[in-house]
Amino acid sequence: MLKPLGNRVIIERKEQEETTKSGIVLTDSAKEKSNEGVVVAVGSGRLLDNGETVAPEVKEGDSVVFQEYAGSEIKRGEETYLILNVEDILAIIEK
Amino acid sequence: MLKPLGNRVIIERKEQEETTKSGIVLTDSAKEKSNEGVVVAVGSGRLLDNGETVAPEVKEGDSVVFQEYAGSEIKRGEETYLILNVEDILAIIEK
Amino acid sequence: MLKPLGNRVIIERKEQEETTKSGIVLTDSAKEKSNEGVVVAVGSGRLLDNGETVAPEVKEGDSVVFQEYAGSEIKRGEETYLILNVEDILAIIEK
Amino acid sequence: MLKPLGNRVIIERKEQEETTKSGIVLTDSAKEKSNEGVVVAVGSGRLLDNGETVAPEVKEGDSVVFQEYAGSEIKRGEETYLILNVEDILAIIEK
Amino acid sequence: MLKPLGNRVIIERKEQEETTKSGIVLTDSAKEKSNEGVVVAVGSGRLLDNGETVAPEVKEGDSVVFQEYAGSEIKRGEETYLILNVEDILAIIEK
Amino acid sequence: MLKPLGNRVIIERKEQEETTKSGIVLTDSAKEKSNEGVVVAVGSGRLLDNGETVAPEVKEGDSVVFQEYAGSEIKRGEETYLILNVEDILAIIEK
Amino acid sequence: MLKPLGNRVIIERKEQEETTKSGIVLTDSAKEKSNEGVVVAVGSGRLLDNGETVAPEVKEGDSVVFQEYAGSEIKRGEETYLILNVEDILAIIEK
Repeated sequence: MLKPLGNRVIIERKEQEETTKSGIVLTDSAKEKSNEGVVVAVGSGRLLDNGETVAPEVKEGDSVVFQEYAGSEIKRGEETYLILNVEDILAIIEK
Repeated sequence: MLKPLGNRVIIERKEQEETTKSGIVLTDSAKEKSNEGVVVAVGSGRLLDNGETVAPEVKEGDSVVFQEYAGSEIKRGEETYLILNVEDILAIIEK
Repeated sequence: MLKPLGNRVIIERKEQEETTKSGIVLTDSAKEKSNEGVVVAVGSGRLLDNGETVAPEVKEGDSVVFQEYAGSEIKRGEETYLILNVEDILAIIEK
Repeated sequence: MLKPLGNRVIIERKEQEETTKSGIVLTDSAKEKSNEGVVVAVGSGRLLDNGETVAPEVKEGDSVVFQEYAGSEIKRGEETYLILNVEDILAIIEK
Repeated sequence: MLKPLGNRVIIERKEQEETTKSGIVLTDSAKEKSNEGVVVAVGSGRLLDNGETVAPEVKEGDSVVFQEYAGSEIKRGEETYLILNVEDILAIIEK
Repeated sequence: MLKPLGNRVIIERKEQEETTKSGIVLTDSAKEKSNEGVVVAVGSGRLLDNGETVAPEVKEGDSVVFQEYAGSEIKRGEETYLILNVEDILAIIEK
Repeated sequence: MLKPLGNRVIIERKEQEETTKSGIVLTDSAKEKSNEGVVVAVGSGRLLDNGETVAPEVKEGDSVVFQEYAGSEIKRGEETYLILNVEDILAIIEK
């Protein structure tokens, strides 16, 4: 598994719908990437100038919406994950 | 529902008038987006360098004017919300 | 009324002269916007890194000169106001 | 009179010589603006992050040399003044 | 050996696969550089504004994923190493 | 005389050689400006965020090497001086 | 001799090899500049915002690798030295 460093989290991106509202099946290249996902790992947090660390406001299992185009994708085996700065997470999706 | 992170708020944008002053009915594409709205959710606030958090100056239900083109739009079901940094809110509209 | 947030103030811009020195009447589009005005509302002030807030150096009713092209205009009914950062105010005009 | 805000001062610019060394009389448009002047008003000073204010290093009546092209010009009646950040003053001219 | 300064680490980059999934043998120029590697040396850490030093979150022997195109390559004899800022390390690969 | 403000010093630039190594006499326009000189006046120093001032590391009479193209030139009578930020001084030339 | 100011060091650059691996003798213009060298002088260090100075992590005689194209070259007599910010030194070469 991956353990993110500092103020980063690892996200498993939500799959996009395979069909549009009007029922058209989308090929892979036509699909826009979702900016929603689930947090799968959380770093130690943000290091302040006084030497303290502030833990991220999200935790494993949280569904989140994040800034489009933010972060770096990394592949582990078959899976692709997104590594994000916590600052790029806009909101938690609560049920 | 969406819970904004950090120094962010979620805004429901005010609907633009459907007709101009001279009575012309506007189509959707001709309508400029309003930069007024109502705060529907408030994040924990701004994290200072000393580790304290300062709550936003706005609260749920406040009508606000914000910087044009600021923030990120996100769709939840039928609704589109705007996620803004508190710094992009210019003023509260008081009645 | 509008209540500015943070280190902002609301300004009612001074009307420009309708005629030039040589007596020519100016149309609206030929008039440059004045960078003088009167403060009509004052925000809470600047938030310092130690969590304290420093009130703006101007108060309601002050006549001020401000940086040209600074700030955002907002319309309330018939009136157009200017929302400025206090840093964009250059000087107070004392009588 | 004008009272500058924050870390600003108001300068009355020194008149440029009307004739060149070789005796040619300069028209207004041919004259470069001087970057010397006299301080006519001083703001409260620089606000530090700890909330203290540090008074400017210049006082009314000081002759100063400043960064070329710095600051904003404002007209009051017949006079044109220059509003400068104290950081744009290079040196005091001592007699 | 190399001893990195400040908040830097030295990385031995993971070799890329010599063949693609479909079995094609890659020449050197066709190989993209891996953004995975092993930490071989660690600097003293990040110097805070209060004069304290915070040790890096990684240690010698850690397998890491880092920002693509980050850092500087240096050659020592036959080997090429990568010197990275700790901030450019995205995550530790745990077994 | 000129008294520099803040973290600035005034430099009298070293004259460039009038002839090249091969004995060619240089005209004024062909001479590159020297980036060496002597400190003739020193400002109060750098103002820290805690309100303290740190005196410059150079003193009157020091021969110094400075960043090329840094600073502002000012003329006083026949002389041209250079006003530099202390940060643009690279080294003191010791005898 | 030269005494570097602040967080700077003076470096004597390592001579590049005169011949390539295949035995071709390089002319001066074909030689890339080395980014290795020896520290010959060390400044007082980095001035922190609290007024303390932190000495550089390198000392006279250290062999170092530095960022390519960093720093300023200065000539003293026959010698050319490189003045670097300590931040541009990547690593110390230990024997």
